[in-house]
Amino acid sequence: MTPPTNTCCRLAKRPDGLPTRETWDFTEHEVPEPGDGEVLVRVSHISLDPAMRGWIREGKSYIPPVRIGEVMRAIAAGEVVTSNFDGIEVGDTVSGLFGVQHYAVANGHAVQRIDPSVAPIPTWLGALGMPGMTAYFGLLDIGKPQEGETLVVSGAAGAVGSLVGQIGKLKGCRVVGIAGGPEKTRYVVDELGFDAAIDYKNDDVAAGLAQHCPDGVDIYFDNVGGEILDAALGALTRHARVIICGAISQYNDSTFYGPKNYMSLLVNHATMTGFVVSDYGARLAEGARDMGQWVGEGKIKTREDIVEGIETFPETLNKLFTGENQGKLVLAVA
Amino acid sequence: MTPPTNTCCRLAKRPDGLPTRETWDFTEHEVPEPGDGEVLVRVSHISLDPAMRGWIREGKSYIPPVRIGEVMRAIAAGEVVTSNFDGIEVGDTVSGLFGVQHYAVANGHAVQRIDPSVAPIPTWLGALGMPGMTAYFGLLDIGKPQEGETLVVSGAAGAVGSLVGQIGKLKGCRVVGIAGGPEKTRYVVDELGFDAAIDYKNDDVAAGLAQHCPDGVDIYFDNVGGEILDAALGALTRHARVIICGAISQYNDSTFYGPKNYMSLLVNHATMTGFVVSDYGARLAEGARDMGQWVGEGKIKTREDIVEGIETFPETLNKLFTGENQGKLVLAVA
Repeated sequence: MTPPTNTCCRLAKRPDGLPTRETWDFTEHEVPEPGDGEVLVRVSHISLDPAMRGWIREGKSYIPPVRIGEVMRAIAAGEVVTSNFDGIEVGDTVSGLFGVQHYAVANGHAVQRIDPSVAPIPTWLGALGMPGMTAYFGLLDIGKPQEGETLVVSGAAGAVGSLVGQIGKLKGCRVVGIAGGPEKTRYVVDELGFDAAIDYKNDDVAAGLAQHCPDGVDIYFDNVGGEILDAALGALTRHARVIICGAISQYNDSTFYGPKNYMSLLVNHATMTGFVVSDYGARLAEGARDMGQWVGEGKIKTREDIVEGIETFPETLNKLFTGENQGKLVLAVA
Repeated sequence: MTPPTNTCCRLAKRPDGLPTRETWDFTEHEVPEPGDGEVLVRVSHISLDPAMRGWIREGKSYIPPVRIGEVMRAIAAGEVVTSNFDGIEVGDTVSGLFGVQHYAVANGHAVQRIDPSVAPIPTWLGALGMPGMTAYFGLLDIGKPQEGETLVVSGAAGAVGSLVGQIGKLKGCRVVGIAGGPEKTRYVVDELGFDAAIDYKNDDVAAGLAQHCPDGVDIYFDNVGGEILDAALGALTRHARVIICGAISQYNDSTFYGPKNYMSLLVNHATMTGFVVSDYGARLAEGARDMGQWVGEGKIKTREDIVEGIETFPETLNKLFTGENQGKLVLAVA
């Protein structure tokens, strides 16, 4: 029997604009051996997230960029096949920054055990993972939603936005989503319980906000940037909170669009605050507890868009930027 | 003896770009009579402020725009010549929204008595007036400066910026000003005690920030907007606070420049908050007490740029936008 090999997807060159096949290199290797304190994981699911576009951009950010030739960084989950770390056993299901590859060696301190009997693995990469914690802490810690307030979220059908809106409903907000296309707007209203949704591909966002938020926008959770951010800024109430979580509309543009309406912050004594989920590393247990309960009780619905095969990574990742994915995008590679 | 007449400067039409002579109309009238509860003020000094450019722009803001044909709105000071209001006497010196005119009728509740023996009237329109309260509450309430932090302020030689930097020094900050031209940068360092200054007209602001703020910018107080705001965003520390007080570089542009570097808020978990001084209407006594004490003790230096004659209003106002004024700009009209 030939030993299994490890397929890795590496960053070949930094893209201008949307990544292409040429952005990536696939290489084959022997499966690595874990050292002391390390575990070997056979990856089953890889999380595809908008932040990955930032990780391959040169320059200072909240973490160093992926280097040319390096295995592409990714959050992933899989089964432990060898363990040299006390407390993690062969057969455990774990998640961590395993990268876009079939086998990963990781320090035992840097992996999290997950329980597939509580929720399927893709949900552990979505509502119970990084996107869930992003929605939870961004909305609750920065947005501080109060009952009766109006919350608007962009990327509303996406991994983070769909959770933000549902958490907002649990907190008693009126929730309006912004998403691309009638299928997504229907989904967030009919299936997730948002009060209204605006289809930015077919409707004027400013007019939609005026219609659906007659008293203005108390909290705006932004995943997209660009002109949608400007429309939301134009609709703020006094003491509104704008949460900057992402700007996916801009990640592949060479010129970043700055919000021309930012003086609305002055007029309204409003605040715009950014964050990344790792800012809340010390409080993750709190988020995991609440999100786990809400998902378990069916109060928060989750949806994953699962695509098969590590070799599809280049095209599958781009679904995030074209808006083709329906829910949390996950690559199944086992 | 002919009775005195009232010269009024009215908004003739809304300017595109920088206001011109055609923006304004001067008209002559009889001096008005105050009604019950009102006072008649002979205006001696008119405050010229960047906010006035916003007041003549059409559209929603924190106060309604000046209407075409209306006397131009302005904060001013003068002497009460008739009083039908209990508690305000003929001969009192008062300030209020008297407009660009020689005589104003005002409701007694809407005027403030000022004491010219404590400070000259122009100082009451500057450090002890609206610019002073703007600097005080914007920096202390929103910026929350801590000893040892680095504070950067743009428009550093202007009415608000010069006070922000000095208050920052009193609070133990390292203070770096951004101003236009060597005379202004010399003034803020040599006379006001800033630690350093960057001449945006002759030097690269981002390079200046890197040089003078080696540990980054903890607080950025913005009066100017545009590319200077972007340079400051690019130098923020974690949990930095950006205070949006104005955007004078953009007020006469038809397209407003949006800050392309706003994602620095995300990377740094930083906050950008806007305000106008009227947000602090209920707390003005607190600001007046501290600013009065600091000015009285010589801990804060003030400078006014006083120009004579109401007929010079159109050209004098524009000194704010060309950066020609040296300190708080005041029109002396008595």
